[in-house]
Amino acid sequence: MMSPLMLIGRVCRLGGRLGPSCVVGSFARLFTNSRNMAKSKFEYVRKFETDDTCLRNCYIVVRLDGRNFHKFAEQHNFTKPNDNRALGLMSRSAHSVMEELEDIVIAYGQSDEFSFVFKRTSTWFKRRASKLMTHVASQFSSSYVFYWKEYFGEQPLLYPPGFDGRVVLYPSNRNLRDYLSWRQADCHINNLYNTVFWMLVLKGGLTTIQAEDRLKRTLAADKNEILFTEFDINYNNESALHRKGTALIWEKQDETVIKRMKLPNEEEKEVPVTRSRRKVQAYHCDIIGDQFWEEHTDILEDDNC
Amino acid sequence: MMSPLMLIGRVCRLGGRLGPSCVVGSFARLFTNSRNMAKSKFEYVRKFETDDTCLRNCYIVVRLDGRNFHKFAEQHNFTKPNDNRALGLMSRSAHSVMEELEDIVIAYGQSDEFSFVFKRTSTWFKRRASKLMTHVASQFSSSYVFYWKEYFGEQPLLYPPGFDGRVVLYPSNRNLRDYLSWRQADCHINNLYNTVFWMLVLKGGLTTIQAEDRLKRTLAADKNEILFTEFDINYNNESALHRKGTALIWEKQDETVIKRMKLPNEEEKEVPVTRSRRKVQAYHCDIIGDQFWEEHTDILEDDNC
Amino acid sequence: MMSPLMLIGRVCRLGGRLGPSCVVGSFARLFTNSRNMAKSKFEYVRKFETDDTCLRNCYIVVRLDGRNFHKFAEQHNFTKPNDNRALGLMSRSAHSVMEELEDIVIAYGQSDEFSFVFKRTSTWFKRRASKLMTHVASQFSSSYVFYWKEYFGEQPLLYPPGFDGRVVLYPSNRNLRDYLSWRQADCHINNLYNTVFWMLVLKGGLTTIQAEDRLKRTLAADKNEILFTEFDINYNNESALHRKGTALIWEKQDETVIKRMKLPNEEEKEVPVTRSRRKVQAYHCDIIGDQFWEEHTDILEDDNC
Amino acid sequence: MMSPLMLIGRVCRLGGRLGPSCVVGSFARLFTNSRNMAKSKFEYVRKFETDDTCLRNCYIVVRLDGRNFHKFAEQHNFTKPNDNRALGLMSRSAHSVMEELEDIVIAYGQSDEFSFVFKRTSTWFKRRASKLMTHVASQFSSSYVFYWKEYFGEQPLLYPPGFDGRVVLYPSNRNLRDYLSWRQADCHINNLYNTVFWMLVLKGGLTTIQAEDRLKRTLAADKNEILFTEFDINYNNESALHRKGTALIWEKQDETVIKRMKLPNEEEKEVPVTRSRRKVQAYHCDIIGDQFWEEHTDILEDDNC
Repeated sequence: MMSPLMLIGRVCRLGGRLGPSCVVGSFARLFTNSRNMAKSKFEYVRKFETDDTCLRNCYIVVRLDGRNFHKFAEQHNFTKPNDNRALGLMSRSAHSVMEELEDIVIAYGQSDEFSFVFKRTSTWFKRRASKLMTHVASQFSSSYVFYWKEYFGEQPLLYPPGFDGRVVLYPSNRNLRDYLSWRQADCHINNLYNTVFWMLVLKGGLTTIQAEDRLKRTLAADKNEILFTEFDINYNNESALHRKGTALIWEKQDETVIKRMKLPNEEEKEVPVTRSRRKVQAYHCDIIGDQFWEEHTDILEDDNC
Repeated sequence: MMSPLMLIGRVCRLGGRLGPSCVVGSFARLFTNSRNMAKSKFEYVRKFETDDTCLRNCYIVVRLDGRNFHKFAEQHNFTKPNDNRALGLMSRSAHSVMEELEDIVIAYGQSDEFSFVFKRTSTWFKRRASKLMTHVASQFSSSYVFYWKEYFGEQPLLYPPGFDGRVVLYPSNRNLRDYLSWRQADCHINNLYNTVFWMLVLKGGLTTIQAEDRLKRTLAADKNEILFTEFDINYNNESALHRKGTALIWEKQDETVIKRMKLPNEEEKEVPVTRSRRKVQAYHCDIIGDQFWEEHTDILEDDNC
Repeated sequence: MMSPLMLIGRVCRLGGRLGPSCVVGSFARLFTNSRNMAKSKFEYVRKFETDDTCLRNCYIVVRLDGRNFHKFAEQHNFTKPNDNRALGLMSRSAHSVMEELEDIVIAYGQSDEFSFVFKRTSTWFKRRASKLMTHVASQFSSSYVFYWKEYFGEQPLLYPPGFDGRVVLYPSNRNLRDYLSWRQADCHINNLYNTVFWMLVLKGGLTTIQAEDRLKRTLAADKNEILFTEFDINYNNESALHRKGTALIWEKQDETVIKRMKLPNEEEKEVPVTRSRRKVQAYHCDIIGDQFWEEHTDILEDDNC
Repeated sequence: MMSPLMLIGRVCRLGGRLGPSCVVGSFARLFTNSRNMAKSKFEYVRKFETDDTCLRNCYIVVRLDGRNFHKFAEQHNFTKPNDNRALGLMSRSAHSVMEELEDIVIAYGQSDEFSFVFKRTSTWFKRRASKLMTHVASQFSSSYVFYWKEYFGEQPLLYPPGFDGRVVLYPSNRNLRDYLSWRQADCHINNLYNTVFWMLVLKGGLTTIQAEDRLKRTLAADKNEILFTEFDINYNNESALHRKGTALIWEKQDETVIKRMKLPNEEEKEVPVTRSRRKVQAYHCDIIGDQFWEEHTDILEDDNC
């Protein structure tokens, strides 16, 4: 680690040689005219920026993926095949993103990835792709470090982790749902594999290479069978968090607060006041089928808009 | 803040109703065939991703800007007009970015912004703009929280901060240097203004509105004059960190380590071993004129490549 | 005009000086190795091409506009306010585009512009925007010259005309219909204006400046009123071609051909054979309301795909 | 071919049913308010257009390629391996493009392709890629048909040909020259191959399949050898037009015109007036080596701008 002192960089190399000369050399000219002239000489460089506005009326999906999280997981002793602290921290960070950025209607996460869906009519950041994805990546990452302690307690975070992101547009509700289904199917496949794999290793006494060999070319049904016959595990009873990942959506909740009020000609009294507030709610639920969407009809907007 | 427990989302709404049905409903079908079939049905959604490869042979600049840092600065009691802790933390985070991502040849920061320049021949992330800028934004943000304590000590960070970013391409050395000059001219203009402004307020007893009025339509020369005649300050003697911002570059440094060695037919002895190592070095220096670039000829590549 | 001889450019400047030297100079080196080596040295330049694939599941609209057609119309004596020969030639060229390029489901034109709509699931040219729009622009332009004589007879085309184009994507049926409505509303507004304007000039004896003044700030109703009271014209009875523009769509038509056939043990005889063929059909019809779309349900694809 | 009458599309299907209803149905509503209101309802669709401005300070190359020109060449009896009429027409069309569009500094063509290079500082069409490439494609294609007769005389053009195009950006002079070298190396390789191939077929009596077999895996030197020993041809003496393709550039030429002038107190007399005019000049010359560029220093701009 660098000491705070290191931030005091070199003003000039080789004593005063560079200092005076450079001030005289380049800024003196700047000073002769108005403050804006100097800057305006360079301002043409702004024209090199390109417009990356996302096509209107499409869902904007930002997906983040952990950088080198295999290594990160090992160095921080994540439990195998799933670490609930790590999954909780991912969700907490995603929650923080949803509260900071407007117009995210659903977020879905599993393993070291999280997808954020902006509503199709969003005008947040004027729909500029670069702004949307960097802000998501930034808010998620700062939150990950900020909330680390809530999930890992005294176990220290060894270094600041990195995530990369991308933007994808989906023009129809069907496309968007298929995107989310794709991620959840990925969660399912990986989790089923990892569950069996680590059972074979941790309980079955196989080496990791043997376990890998054993699972080569097995289908989902085969893996379910191994779990059931060899380890007495019904995969469907495993944790929904692991099998389904986490979907975060906004839900209205009634909040009742007791307020002291005084009406004219009455004594002051305590009154329960109920307000409806939007809150982020987590689901570990199938989102491939129709039921979830029928029960949460306000997530998607009509295609024909 | 959300309690860690909240990460345990609802598996299913309304008791077991959704649970079994959804597993049977949608995944049962998936299970009938190979594990890949189900996922592959949705995989067409990958084709909606667009290629955002940066044009070859151009410098790739990623610039980050703090989100709502006015408010953030106030809530964290940043000193006016410059807070060295905050500036140090920005540089430390930029330093972390340079060590994590390959091919950044120079970074330049001032106030709540930092620009990162990838060399024009870089193939990092296959030059994909989205990956480059999100990774920079992510690494910078997680580092900002991670290193907070080194600069702010016991003063707590109240919430995870956000940064947004963008990518700009520059085809020639002249364009790139003009970009960096533009940012340093911006630093100069803002810092000169802020220095006078806060002098007028903190030492001169003006209200902020009065100070603003006083500075309306003044040129750089006028502001230098106010500083000199009213506050006995020669602006050129002010902190170079504040006047010039921070440029981070890679420099080779010789490191000498004592190693114990044993050659055949000789006694073991201690030998000084000198190695050249690349280190990030900070400069608070004029980068508009030619001198800086003549002294660091390895930053830029030849235009004619 | 340039004579055909001019195509024989200069082989070398200043007699043979450049000739031998250049062959020796640059190609001699190329010849020493395999034919591919020389070319492959330069082939890296292909990597500078960018991918401009159109987002999937969106309608791709290519709109062409005539370049300097005001002047072109004057130089070729187009009648005012509408020239049926010119409109016919535009439609003929659009027809040619539809027959050459796959997947255009509707084209709409008015004045000197034409829009071509590729179906949302088209994979023509791998959905590459540049290929789609240049091919449309090219085919339209070569057709315009090729079919000129069919519409203008002996009146010569004075020079090759130019069109420019653009690509716009529309994610939903509603967006696409609104695009076409926008163009037809534009046709309506312009044609109503031009009809009154030229009536005032040609029949009413006003100068063009007087006519312009007269129409300033008039609404559609006012213009209808002028036409009706001053020129006894009911605008709705004017040519639908002019009021509505031209929509080209594919329609199945039964074609009956007489074929001579000979079945075994029968005499040869003439048999009518009916086949269904797709043909481009022109409509001068309202396409803003629902009726046109209800009668041609195969133009649009379902949003939910 | 379609008769001119076919342009008279159907106003309404099924007699008057659609006609009145649609006018009443959709336009009546439009008429009630100002002419702009109706259109403005749809104008939001303009926001779906994306900005495709080309990065500043880069050469903009538009390359056109003939669509299905193999078939086109056969149907129009192009001579093998090169047809000078067709090459002349290509150059004439490119010439027309250069005169219509500003800022093209060099064009290079061979076979059925032509590349147009806009100067790096061009602001033509605000550097919008779509406009640049469609206008080039359009102007080239209309010119191809327009000038057909000058090169093919009475041989009729059977149908309007198509070209597709693309835009590529090059940030440095080296990159641009390598691009042009790539195209000229392609010309060389193809022409050498085609020259030998058609010699073997037309003079050597081989079938096309035999000729193909004969040339498999031969290097340039082998092909030169075949030409020399079997057909007594020194490839370097073949037509430069075929070996090198055609480069079109602007050149200043002095033009002398005789004008009748009358000065005060003098008799009217004829005076030769010499003016410098920019003209497009064709070269069939090596453009891979330095000589061409040293002799035409005004084509490229300095990299360091």
